[in-house]
Amino acid sequence: MQPASALTLSRSAAAINGIRCLSGIATSEPSNPNVKTKIPGPKSDELKIAMAKVHQNPSVKMFVDYEKCFGNYLVDADGNEILDTFMQISSIPLGYNHPELVALHKDPRLITAAVSRPALGSFPRTDFAKLVDNALISIAPKGLSSVQTMLCGTSANENALKTAFIHYQTAKRGGKSPTAADLESCMNQQLPGTPHLSVLGFHGAFHGRSLAMLSVTRSKAVHKVDIPAHDWPIANFPRYKYPLEKHEEHNHAQDEKCLKEVRDLIAARKNDKRDVAAVIVEPIQSEGGDHHASAEFFHGLQKICKDNGVCFIVDEVQTGAGASGTMWAHEQWNLPSSPDIVTFSKKALIGGYYYKPEFKINEPYRIYNTWMGEPTKLVILEKAVEVMKRENLVKKTKEIGEELIKGLRRLESHYPQKVFNVRGMGTLVAFDTCDTQTRDKLMDIALQKGLQIGGCGDTSIRFRPALIFAEKHLQTTLDLLEKSIKTL
Amino acid sequence: MQPASALTLSRSAAAINGIRCLSGIATSEPSNPNVKTKIPGPKSDELKIAMAKVHQNPSVKMFVDYEKCFGNYLVDADGNEILDTFMQISSIPLGYNHPELVALHKDPRLITAAVSRPALGSFPRTDFAKLVDNALISIAPKGLSSVQTMLCGTSANENALKTAFIHYQTAKRGGKSPTAADLESCMNQQLPGTPHLSVLGFHGAFHGRSLAMLSVTRSKAVHKVDIPAHDWPIANFPRYKYPLEKHEEHNHAQDEKCLKEVRDLIAARKNDKRDVAAVIVEPIQSEGGDHHASAEFFHGLQKICKDNGVCFIVDEVQTGAGASGTMWAHEQWNLPSSPDIVTFSKKALIGGYYYKPEFKINEPYRIYNTWMGEPTKLVILEKAVEVMKRENLVKKTKEIGEELIKGLRRLESHYPQKVFNVRGMGTLVAFDTCDTQTRDKLMDIALQKGLQIGGCGDTSIRFRPALIFAEKHLQTTLDLLEKSIKTL
Repeated sequence: MQPASALTLSRSAAAINGIRCLSGIATSEPSNPNVKTKIPGPKSDELKIAMAKVHQNPSVKMFVDYEKCFGNYLVDADGNEILDTFMQISSIPLGYNHPELVALHKDPRLITAAVSRPALGSFPRTDFAKLVDNALISIAPKGLSSVQTMLCGTSANENALKTAFIHYQTAKRGGKSPTAADLESCMNQQLPGTPHLSVLGFHGAFHGRSLAMLSVTRSKAVHKVDIPAHDWPIANFPRYKYPLEKHEEHNHAQDEKCLKEVRDLIAARKNDKRDVAAVIVEPIQSEGGDHHASAEFFHGLQKICKDNGVCFIVDEVQTGAGASGTMWAHEQWNLPSSPDIVTFSKKALIGGYYYKPEFKINEPYRIYNTWMGEPTKLVILEKAVEVMKRENLVKKTKEIGEELIKGLRRLESHYPQKVFNVRGMGTLVAFDTCDTQTRDKLMDIALQKGLQIGGCGDTSIRFRPALIFAEKHLQTTLDLLEKSIKTL
Repeated sequence: MQPASALTLSRSAAAINGIRCLSGIATSEPSNPNVKTKIPGPKSDELKIAMAKVHQNPSVKMFVDYEKCFGNYLVDADGNEILDTFMQISSIPLGYNHPELVALHKDPRLITAAVSRPALGSFPRTDFAKLVDNALISIAPKGLSSVQTMLCGTSANENALKTAFIHYQTAKRGGKSPTAADLESCMNQQLPGTPHLSVLGFHGAFHGRSLAMLSVTRSKAVHKVDIPAHDWPIANFPRYKYPLEKHEEHNHAQDEKCLKEVRDLIAARKNDKRDVAAVIVEPIQSEGGDHHASAEFFHGLQKICKDNGVCFIVDEVQTGAGASGTMWAHEQWNLPSSPDIVTFSKKALIGGYYYKPEFKINEPYRIYNTWMGEPTKLVILEKAVEVMKRENLVKKTKEIGEELIKGLRRLESHYPQKVFNVRGMGTLVAFDTCDTQTRDKLMDIALQKGLQIGGCGDTSIRFRPALIFAEKHLQTTLDLLEKSIKTL
């Protein structure tokens, strides 16, 4: 481990790459983790007690000194310098305190948008379209040239569903706006204005924690218990055996079985006059345990949606914005045409969704709320996208992800009782352990060595590093992980 | 009207009250509106066409040059200087580009929190509790000493409902955590883990636009049509006649009728084993038409909730943070004890809710999501609260609100065919016009004179100015409004 002095903090204004930084914010990362106390340490423990007086805190892991964090390294309240491969649940694209993003504190657009925040649906900034163009359209998936900004992943998914419902009912009306009878009956939540439509989701999925999104979220009971839900249909998502090349038959059968379930459920609901208006699916079921599915499965799923006039929504909240080794994970499926709607948030900084032209809602105030996202996020994303492109970070993420998988496969071969089912796209990489207790223990041992990794599902470990995770971070990760596995 | 030069813009760094401002952001407001083109003008029209290429835009009213806005004045893309009494749907507490908030661009906490955004539920900032204390606990309603931060009003309300559901089920279990049977059955959305609980709302209410919040939102059909809903009960909200003192009997009967409906609906649902777990209500039904109810009504409502073990949620998203002339509108009811939960957003900058100690959820990851709000908002709110207190803005809002009501009553007496039912709390003031067409026309005539006012319900005008709305703005408002009414 490095001495604490290896972490160079800018106690006064410092210059990096010609960018003057704001006093008090770190400007370089340590070369190695440096652990001084147990984690969480005594200061985190103290702060947790203080927090309990004003705000619930049972899920808090540690308190973080964000001004001291830099790049791939998090610094906690006790001064521990931790290599972070989980990055605030996969949400920091360029690592902590990226100097070009910190330099935006001098951009009048950022502070104005923060303190004079627009109601975007009614009074957008004069440069709103330009910001959307630079930040979001410039990285849009092929075939999806329109976008709707929102605040977070959940509000993106909620509004994607609303768009699908409105589209479905509009199609039923032959493209017409709601009738007087629709408008009247919806105020009492009766047919025809309030339709009995449903959304099909998958076992193991996670799409957010509002009541509607919980109705298609099936990753963990703790998210769902005690909360009323919509009676919406649920299908199985493939559960593959690894390595894939040795289990083609099983895995293909999984695809077929799950697709048949989707077809049957859509047909049953149609029969029952509770039509499925949308299917929502993650490219990788992340929270649920990093379950992957084949390109063939997604081709099949899209075809079923098309055949039934059902909106095909791909939830890229966790997989989007470069982490999969392509800008969007679904691009790796080579679909004949794009999904109908692709939702995003996390590494995209702002929430929202791309949609096909035919999913544009033409009537005002149907997809609307006070803020509809926030231009500060667009100002930051605009710069982040510039950096991502200039530095080829998506391609580098693909390459380092392949190295990460290779390294984990080596661990898998050395510790076959402890590491299984290594899988990944880009740096969205995971492996399984034998049980929940072992997985949790491994995470804690690694953390005490200064390596933060994420858990998912019941027994899996997931990596969700920033797009600046490089060779040296990979070596430290594999080294500390192997040391941790050895002590299990 | 003033010449354009009256708007002093800081083309270079300028100093106001000792605060150095960021170059390019306005530092003073015009003394009067200055309208140069029709509104929206040719530049707004052009920008709307550009926006259509990348983002839906049918509800856009005008594009705004936010760097040029200051105080109570908005400057649109065409350089029109407009006195804004609607303030981004009631969401800007201290007016545009308040110098002390703009000065926060130099605060390292602001930029760090923006570019290294924490997953607050797991890795909060070391100063999180302090920020919450300064920004939110220091203005907490009496009896509500804990708070949960969220991103917006809708996520605040969604999580308030979740808290109520969890509380209700926990009480049914005698205070215990969910059983194994609960945890298993909820994954298939079956009893007992997924309960048939409901939320009681009111006709005319607005609580947000997620699917669940739409199920208790009944202000306008355009919000609800084509969207599936929870089958939850709905009661009438009082509809008073004005002036109140002349219609005591009618208004009291309204209270009684509505309270009886609430009692009956709760009893019917209990009979039907679809218990009401929460009642959600606004102090003023804002979007629905600025409908007020008496302190007696809310006392009665709280008592019914207590008698039935139902969570009493007051939605102060629009009425909170000072605009009512008290920090929270419900404080004016003098309830025997505080509501169980009070939700906020808009002028509070961050979303969230205060809750009574017994509504604290003790298990981790039940009230949780990736971001759970955002510390940048707390940094700004901390300063805004400091300004509000130092400058007595809540008391001033009460006083100027009374003057606004007086002025409107004078207009009511002069134009009895055009202005009715003047009512208000603080500057949350409204009046009715004779029909929707007249209301919309009046709003447009006023806008063309440089006065922005808001509409609500079918025929109402609402004022939602910032807390810095002062005597001179009031005089301009009444003057332009009277001129507009005359031309109707």
